[in-house]
Amino acid sequence: MTSLLTSEIPTVRDIRAAAERLAGVAVRTPLLEAPLLNAQIGGRLLIKAEPLQRTGSFKFRGAYNRMSLIPEAERAKGVVAFSSGNHAQGVAAAAGILGLPATVVMPSDAPAIKRANTEALGAKVVLYDRHRDDRDAIGAEIANRTGATIVRPYDDPAIIAGQGTVGLEIAEQVTALGVRPDAVLVCCGGGGLVSGTALALSETLPGVPVWCVEPEQFDDTRRSLEAGQRQTNPSDARSICDALLSPTPGVLTFELNRQLLAGGLAVSDVEVRSAMRASFEHFKLVVEPGGAVAIAAALSGKIAVAGRTIVAVASGGNVDPAMYRRILDD
Amino acid sequence: MTSLLTSEIPTVRDIRAAAERLAGVAVRTPLLEAPLLNAQIGGRLLIKAEPLQRTGSFKFRGAYNRMSLIPEAERAKGVVAFSSGNHAQGVAAAAGILGLPATVVMPSDAPAIKRANTEALGAKVVLYDRHRDDRDAIGAEIANRTGATIVRPYDDPAIIAGQGTVGLEIAEQVTALGVRPDAVLVCCGGGGLVSGTALALSETLPGVPVWCVEPEQFDDTRRSLEAGQRQTNPSDARSICDALLSPTPGVLTFELNRQLLAGGLAVSDVEVRSAMRASFEHFKLVVEPGGAVAIAAALSGKIAVAGRTIVAVASGGNVDPAMYRRILDD
Repeated sequence: MTSLLTSEIPTVRDIRAAAERLAGVAVRTPLLEAPLLNAQIGGRLLIKAEPLQRTGSFKFRGAYNRMSLIPEAERAKGVVAFSSGNHAQGVAAAAGILGLPATVVMPSDAPAIKRANTEALGAKVVLYDRHRDDRDAIGAEIANRTGATIVRPYDDPAIIAGQGTVGLEIAEQVTALGVRPDAVLVCCGGGGLVSGTALALSETLPGVPVWCVEPEQFDDTRRSLEAGQRQTNPSDARSICDALLSPTPGVLTFELNRQLLAGGLAVSDVEVRSAMRASFEHFKLVVEPGGAVAIAAALSGKIAVAGRTIVAVASGGNVDPAMYRRILDD
Repeated sequence: MTSLLTSEIPTVRDIRAAAERLAGVAVRTPLLEAPLLNAQIGGRLLIKAEPLQRTGSFKFRGAYNRMSLIPEAERAKGVVAFSSGNHAQGVAAAAGILGLPATVVMPSDAPAIKRANTEALGAKVVLYDRHRDDRDAIGAEIANRTGATIVRPYDDPAIIAGQGTVGLEIAEQVTALGVRPDAVLVCCGGGGLVSGTALALSETLPGVPVWCVEPEQFDDTRRSLEAGQRQTNPSDARSICDALLSPTPGVLTFELNRQLLAGGLAVSDVEVRSAMRASFEHFKLVVEPGGAVAIAAALSGKIAVAGRTIVAVASGGNVDPAMYRRILDD
């Protein structure tokens, strides 16, 4: 066990501490803008470009922050994580930098690029069946046997604080541009990125509404916010957004999201594909399906953009060339 | 006629003045890095990501700098430019910002995305046949008739100075990283970007070799550097690098390149396609064929990378989805 109280709700101070740990290790990703696209939508869309982050998604931020807090005595036993791929790569890269052995439990249908990169980064990959096996049980068994620290994908205050550095950067970047956004849109699987980002913005840009965006059928956080308690997605739900297929909101993340979010939006696979093409054309940025839901919400009219400034977080870019090709074909 | 002496060789001071004009208007593009790719090549490759520049290529820098220098009395008569597409978009965007009418003479086989964007940015497009018509004559006729200022694509000191801001930024960015590159690789069509970049680096990173990179069959600058005078490409030469198909080096650009460059490298279309795929996979960056030649030179072993730090400028990302899809298919 570590000295970190993993049931604690993180604070903005934790996010600032995470930003210090990540300085010079994580990429301070740019906020991108496309004047021609702005002209088309009659508003201003600013994209926080996390595909340009180390390992191609925001997940490195939380993983590195969490793993930096593992006590010296525990480090040699390594870490274990379960992930559809982006958290896996974040954990593998952070383990490489910190010099820890890492094992990642990954669904057998994860994109090939995510599995290959996780292994190339030096982690051991253990596969499971997303519809049959219990990944938590597999991870717990490995942790019990080896003494490895479990690095949760989202429901951990140090993970949330690490992802929240996205929010700190957004605040600094829009302030440098001299604009105050009318809304900030963030994708949501388990809710680590959106809760951390909303927490950071609650202090740095108070009053700016933050919305979570999910795939249709995986809009558990949207429905949970409406119901006031955690809801679950149907087990037969399907989406191309492989990074956002969590069955239910996290406990800590939902506690934050319940207090901080303006609400939830949901987008279809068709809207996601269109947003990926717009990112190709206007931002020259490769965005994966789950990474494109916030852009999709802005471009498909799920939130008003005319005459307004909207920040959308593009959370990752780890998409197989074969799928990307099919999406450009549409 | 303008008061600018267009036969003058620019200086680093002109580049610094251009940087001041471009501050807050052009994007300060990031220097990207991919640890997994570095591990594969056994060296450190840093990519200056100009696809993230306004209009999707470096060309906006020079166009805006040049057009900022047009005297008030000449502005209403507008500008005329000839371009395969990226300079066209740069001119169109700069004209929009500065409030000038713009006409662009563009080859009929330019990528559809470049023509569409140029028109969307508000410029009038006049088409010509790349293999039959004389674009200079068409541009000169329009200028004579309307009094418009010709904005040359490269052979103009203010254009070279604008493109040279890429070099200033590279120097600042590698200095912030605490590294001194072993070489800087820059694509070369007419030579504006590489000459300006080499000029900036001659003062900011003196002694660091700068190489131009061209498509095979369009290696006129490489051969000109060897011969000591300007050479011409064969008229039947073909390449997928639509942005780099200039027939011969510029007069001013070659004068600078002759003094400043370490030499020239040439890459095949196959190597370019491979570099575009690597940019997709590792940098999540959409790079067009002509924009990928410097990366191609580094990845194909045209220059030693093992144990070294190489900066490669990715100069643009304006590629049609249909071509990009075919390249991902390879």
